[in-house]
Amino acid sequence: MTEPALGRSARKRLTILSAGRELFLSNGYQGTSVDQIAASAEVSKQTVYKHFGDKQELLLAIVNGALEATVTPFLGQIAALADTADVEADLTVVAGDYLRAVLQEPVVQLRRLVVGEANRVPALAELYYEQAPARTLAAFAYCFSRLHDRGLLRAPEPAVAAEHFAFLIIGRSIDQALFLGGPQVQASVDIDDYVRAGVRVFLAGYRPRAEAR
Amino acid sequence: MTEPALGRSARKRLTILSAGRELFLSNGYQGTSVDQIAASAEVSKQTVYKHFGDKQELLLAIVNGALEATVTPFLGQIAALADTADVEADLTVVAGDYLRAVLQEPVVQLRRLVVGEANRVPALAELYYEQAPARTLAAFAYCFSRLHDRGLLRAPEPAVAAEHFAFLIIGRSIDQALFLGGPQVQASVDIDDYVRAGVRVFLAGYRPRAEAR
Repeated sequence: MTEPALGRSARKRLTILSAGRELFLSNGYQGTSVDQIAASAEVSKQTVYKHFGDKQELLLAIVNGALEATVTPFLGQIAALADTADVEADLTVVAGDYLRAVLQEPVVQLRRLVVGEANRVPALAELYYEQAPARTLAAFAYCFSRLHDRGLLRAPEPAVAAEHFAFLIIGRSIDQALFLGGPQVQASVDIDDYVRAGVRVFLAGYRPRAEAR
Repeated sequence: MTEPALGRSARKRLTILSAGRELFLSNGYQGTSVDQIAASAEVSKQTVYKHFGDKQELLLAIVNGALEATVTPFLGQIAALADTADVEADLTVVAGDYLRAVLQEPVVQLRRLVVGEANRVPALAELYYEQAPARTLAAFAYCFSRLHDRGLLRAPEPAVAAEHFAFLIIGRSIDQALFLGGPQVQASVDIDDYVRAGVRVFLAGYRPRAEAR
C-alpha cells in the first residue's frame, strides 16, 4: 500500500488554504472575498466557513502555516550555531541564509499584507510579530548567550546583540523590500559582500576583548 | 496690516489635504472615499478633483507634504554632524532624535499605509522610499564620507556605513512598530540606553584604527 491518502475534508482544507493564500497575496485582504476563495478552491462558501469560521480566521491560519514553513527550520539552524568552533565563518553562513530568506518574494508579500492590515486586524500583526521576528530574535539571543558563556563572544546583553546582528544583516534590505519589492533589492545588493560587511561590524562590537582587533 | 491671508483656493487646498490625511491614516486608502474627504473638508467632490485630479494624486500630495515636514529638517541636522568635534557625543544625539522621530505614531501610520498599498500603488511606495529612507541614508553617507576624510571615522564605504548606523539605531524598533504600533515599542525600550548600545557597536566597527579600543 502507498501512504494513506488524506481524508476528503482534510484535502478540502488544504485546497482552501492554498487558494486563499494565493488570492490574499495577490489582491490583499480587502481585495479578496470568501466567494472568490470558494470559487478558486472549487468548494462552496459554506465549506469555507465550516473549516475556518470567517475570512479573518482563514487569513490567520494561512499566515500561521506560512511562518511555520519558513521560520521553524531556520530556528534549528540558529540553535546549531551555538556549538560552532568558528564563529565568524558560521555567523556568515547563517547571515547569508537569513538575508536570502527574508528577500523571497512570498515573504515580502506576506509582510506587506500583514502590515497593511495592522490597524484593522491587530491580532494578525501580533501573531506575525510573535511567530516571525520575535521568535527569530529570541533564538539569536539564546545562541549569543551560549557563545558568551563559551567565551567566543562578549555579549552580556544577548537580546540587544541579537537585534544588532539581525538589523546589521537584514535591516536595510527588509525595509527597502517592503517599499520596492524583493527582486529589486536582490538586484541592487551583492548579498555575500553585504553579509561580510555586517558580520565584520558585529564582531568588532561583540568579539571578546582579548581578540579585539 | 497683518500677514496677507491665503486666497480662498489655497485655503481650500490645505483643508482638503488635512482632511484627507486624517481619513487616510485612520481608515486606510481603500477605506477612504473622495466623498468622505469632500464632506470632512466641507467642499464639493468637484473641488477635490479640481485641486488633485484623483484620489491617488491626493494621497501622493499628502505623503509628499508629510515627508517634507518631517524628513527635511532632519537632513540639516545630519549635515551639521559632518563638522562635529566629538563624534561619539554628536552621533548619540542625532541617533536619539532619529529613533524618536521614526517612532512617532503618525510616521508609523504613514509607513503602514504606504506599505499596505505598495502592490496597488507602487508609485506611492517609490515616492516614499526616495523621499524618506533613501534621502536620509544618502545624508548619513555624505556625512560619514566627510568624517572619514577628516580622520574621525574609518568608513571607506560610506553608504554601507550609513545603512549599518541607521539600522543599528532604528532597525528593531521601526520593524516592531510596523506590527505593534509606535507607543508599544516606545514603552518597551529605553531609548537612551538603546541608542548608546548602537553607537558603541557602530564606533567599534568604524573608529579609525589608531583609536580602536
